[in-house]
Amino acid sequence: MNKINHTHNIPSPATPGTGIPTNMGLDHIGIVVPNAQEAASFLMEVFDAEFDWEVKRDPIPTAGERGWSEIFGVHPDAYMPHVIMLKCGDNVLTQYIELFQWSSPDQYQPQGEGGWHKFSDLGNSYISFTVKDMDRVVSHIKSTVIPKWQGTRFIQDPPMHFPLRGEVCTSTFLVSPWGMWIELTSWSQSKEKGKVIKTQQEYEPHPLVGQHINELPTPAFMIDLDVVDHNINLMRSRILGKGMEWRAPAKGHKCPELAKYMIQKGANGVVLLTLAEAEAFAAAGIQDIYLANIVGSKEELERLSLLAKRVKRLRVAVDNEEYLQDLAAVIQQWEITTPIEVLIELNINHNRCGVTIPEAVKLARQAKEIETTTKAIIFAGITGYEGHTPILSPEEKTLETKKAHGILAKAKTLIEQEGIKVKIVSAGGSCNYIDSLEEGVITEIQAGGGAIGDLLYYNKAHLKDHGHKMGALILTQIISVPHDKSRAMGNAGFKAVGWHPFGGLPQPRDRSDLRVIGLSAEHTKFEGVDQEGSAQLPEMVKGDVQVNRGDKIVLIPGYTDAMGFLHREIYGIRNDRVESVWKTVSNVTWSSQ
Amino acid sequence: MNKINHTHNIPSPATPGTGIPTNMGLDHIGIVVPNAQEAASFLMEVFDAEFDWEVKRDPIPTAGERGWSEIFGVHPDAYMPHVIMLKCGDNVLTQYIELFQWSSPDQYQPQGEGGWHKFSDLGNSYISFTVKDMDRVVSHIKSTVIPKWQGTRFIQDPPMHFPLRGEVCTSTFLVSPWGMWIELTSWSQSKEKGKVIKTQQEYEPHPLVGQHINELPTPAFMIDLDVVDHNINLMRSRILGKGMEWRAPAKGHKCPELAKYMIQKGANGVVLLTLAEAEAFAAAGIQDIYLANIVGSKEELERLSLLAKRVKRLRVAVDNEEYLQDLAAVIQQWEITTPIEVLIELNINHNRCGVTIPEAVKLARQAKEIETTTKAIIFAGITGYEGHTPILSPEEKTLETKKAHGILAKAKTLIEQEGIKVKIVSAGGSCNYIDSLEEGVITEIQAGGGAIGDLLYYNKAHLKDHGHKMGALILTQIISVPHDKSRAMGNAGFKAVGWHPFGGLPQPRDRSDLRVIGLSAEHTKFEGVDQEGSAQLPEMVKGDVQVNRGDKIVLIPGYTDAMGFLHREIYGIRNDRVESVWKTVSNVTWSSQ
Repeated sequence: MNKINHTHNIPSPATPGTGIPTNMGLDHIGIVVPNAQEAASFLMEVFDAEFDWEVKRDPIPTAGERGWSEIFGVHPDAYMPHVIMLKCGDNVLTQYIELFQWSSPDQYQPQGEGGWHKFSDLGNSYISFTVKDMDRVVSHIKSTVIPKWQGTRFIQDPPMHFPLRGEVCTSTFLVSPWGMWIELTSWSQSKEKGKVIKTQQEYEPHPLVGQHINELPTPAFMIDLDVVDHNINLMRSRILGKGMEWRAPAKGHKCPELAKYMIQKGANGVVLLTLAEAEAFAAAGIQDIYLANIVGSKEELERLSLLAKRVKRLRVAVDNEEYLQDLAAVIQQWEITTPIEVLIELNINHNRCGVTIPEAVKLARQAKEIETTTKAIIFAGITGYEGHTPILSPEEKTLETKKAHGILAKAKTLIEQEGIKVKIVSAGGSCNYIDSLEEGVITEIQAGGGAIGDLLYYNKAHLKDHGHKMGALILTQIISVPHDKSRAMGNAGFKAVGWHPFGGLPQPRDRSDLRVIGLSAEHTKFEGVDQEGSAQLPEMVKGDVQVNRGDKIVLIPGYTDAMGFLHREIYGIRNDRVESVWKTVSNVTWSSQ
Repeated sequence: MNKINHTHNIPSPATPGTGIPTNMGLDHIGIVVPNAQEAASFLMEVFDAEFDWEVKRDPIPTAGERGWSEIFGVHPDAYMPHVIMLKCGDNVLTQYIELFQWSSPDQYQPQGEGGWHKFSDLGNSYISFTVKDMDRVVSHIKSTVIPKWQGTRFIQDPPMHFPLRGEVCTSTFLVSPWGMWIELTSWSQSKEKGKVIKTQQEYEPHPLVGQHINELPTPAFMIDLDVVDHNINLMRSRILGKGMEWRAPAKGHKCPELAKYMIQKGANGVVLLTLAEAEAFAAAGIQDIYLANIVGSKEELERLSLLAKRVKRLRVAVDNEEYLQDLAAVIQQWEITTPIEVLIELNINHNRCGVTIPEAVKLARQAKEIETTTKAIIFAGITGYEGHTPILSPEEKTLETKKAHGILAKAKTLIEQEGIKVKIVSAGGSCNYIDSLEEGVITEIQAGGGAIGDLLYYNKAHLKDHGHKMGALILTQIISVPHDKSRAMGNAGFKAVGWHPFGGLPQPRDRSDLRVIGLSAEHTKFEGVDQEGSAQLPEMVKGDVQVNRGDKIVLIPGYTDAMGFLHREIYGIRNDRVESVWKTVSNVTWSSQ
């Protein structure tokens, strides 16, 4: 039976590499369907397609100067009431389908099944999905899809099997409710390499989850989640109890999953300090981001304007009129704009960024005017950072916080006297959040480090007096002990623990007979201490070190903000067992390139 | 003009993960065209599509028992004379297009342009390609494609620009010779991540190469290669001139390309301090690695034994008998073993790792015995680190280096008295390499930081007295200046510059009227200085800061070893223009997982 000829000749000797320059391959396909919403619902429910974006248009077709009918060469009265883009797989740029719904007096209506083309009609098209297990697919479609979605049926039952690309291909077609065919393809070998679509991916726990912390690679940044829960409960009840919002800085840990953990427990969003962090957190699904810093370049401003479209709320600090105008201009350059909220930053005696009260009033007026005329920005309120107060004595800290917040209160009053509502007054930090509760002017407290806790927050910032505990930990392993046991060397140096003058040296959590007396790049130096000597860091006290090569020691770091950004993983633990392994976005490059 | 409504509502609340099981996403699309060969030729020549397979069929339609018309529900006389599958990109399973040519008495022939659908017709479809450089694409199509392929034209000229998925999308359509539309899409960010289609791939220099440093994203870690060349020439002539080997520590920059640069100019290999660094450098092609540290766990020892096979020479430090045995055992477990060179580490008064002289003799004997009986290790010699000497006064440093090397000399003599050859005596550092040249005992000097140069090496380690210059630099941008110009804030804080008590604060390279008076996590604080005040860091001196928001300032860091590991890129520069953009292996996780 020589009815089918398979040939392997290349049909045309196209010269390689002379095509359209910089081509990277197939991006997506577009299909005109009778009803975009119905087609999307079918693909989302039956094929786990993910919604990407949609546009709904009014009947009058416009597209700037040109108009849709001129651009697309369609009937003058034609318009697209609905366009939906779906992501049908996890490969970026290649697994999208765009569904177009047209309303047009001269639209051709095919006469085939379901008002669609026959397969043999010119211009008919179908899409094909890859599946791993064809038997499960066929049985699922029969039991679940066909009974529910009227008009669906199989084109090929049983499926066809044939050799292709050196493997066995199995394929069948499903007719969609509107008559379009959708192929299901299974590859005997490639299916082993592919991953199922995101919503179907079964949770595969990290192999270290459930293990004792002594099984962790070292040095390891661990967070005791019971301690974090304890600290969060204190902060939430205190802050939310006063009717204030609680926004958690995440720059110290740079971990979107830990930020989500805090948001689930009451925080309303995150504070970040660099644009690269903000981009990475947005990509990880954090929807409410305050970038409490000023970006430097035009290119960064442009990235900011694009970031706005990715999240529900993007808020930035501003302390300069020209910067405010640059920000508005970069947002306005797009035909479709997404506004960014701005907070005017005041210098509340920290003497870093921020303006004076009269300048803030002027900036607020300008911001409100830009908001009114362009909708590119939204004036949301004012902010300030009391970065000079963290390690003051409790009395001085209360006094300095009051002074700092007095500046914000005065600025708010003067701005509101201009008829401009100041919705947000954002300030505070973990070190003075207790003081910030009492002022009555702050609407939002920025406090994250106190929810984790380390030596600086506990001791120097006096949070131990307010019931906080220390949850940041680092695990080190002893790599060398001399025979006279005069010292022991761990493998967590300043490249793992960080180094900050306020923070000081880390301390063992469980070993009162040991203390850290030095950090080099990759080494922790321990010495034994006697019963009385344990408090006088970093003086040396003689004593035998009761540790051996291979032992693991849990340390409490000096200052998490100088440590967290050095790690790629955070191990969430309870009772010294690993509960979660979270990736950080640390060492995100400063550029987008 | 409210004609376009953008909404963020997901159109249907499809339950996640309940769709067709084992779905892996879009596989390919199929399109019925008038002539499969002509369509394939167009896509192959104009879009560099690759031929995958084709089937040609005789007029009598058969498909085994079932027959084509029954399978596909088409006219009994319908058949497919030609089907061609094309690969349109390098993503496996997702960038294929199947072109069908049908012969059928009842085939619908559309009445639009080129005998194809109008865009608004039901069932019309198009395909979209991703391109990198839209300007080149448009000009190529005008000059090459349209003149040759009759019927091709642009639908949108100029292309449309709009924000999408957090980036800028630029798109236009080309009408194919048979009337089908093909979109060309360019993504402002994804295009940097994507590769052009295989036949077009060529070496693309980094877009920042050749640019002035003011074009760099900030903060940027830069290395002045002219300075590095100058320092390397000094070190090479001094070290190699004495017949010694020069091994360059790379832990301060963590950049394999910079290490290769030094190896090309005379260094014989690298020194690294963590296993993860060593693995990453081996993966980047560095063939001679000394891991001057002790690994902690069994799992790390196993990784070490695998690493040995990847490089020409792997050498490690050992200061413990049990560790020596563990090391040999983990190598011996493999059927084909690759030996690791060991250096016995002595404590030469630094009091970190390392053993006493009698212990070193014993360890050397044990190492030699294991070498002889198992071939798993090779006893190569001894080592020590004078980590207590870097910032001593020149006189004290000379004295302490002599003492330290005296310990190595004595150990060498005693080991060789046992009939065991000590081939390698590896010690020294950039801070005392000048002293190390004169002792006669060292065979290999470990010095890398002095080849780059920073404030610590230049001033506190006195390398300025020996002709060295400072090549490590960091670029910061001014983000805020108050109206009274009492200060200026840059965007390079301790998370970009590092923080080390020996290193101190960074200093401007070109601005004697400015100095750095503080670093917070993401901020550099500058103050103006008068003519006399410039040397007394970090005291505050009054003065007007002559800088503005947006200015870029080049800083010399305090200590590169506390800074380099914070960066993902190093910009190699000459005369303030970018010559190379090198990736670092910084923030390599501590684990292999």
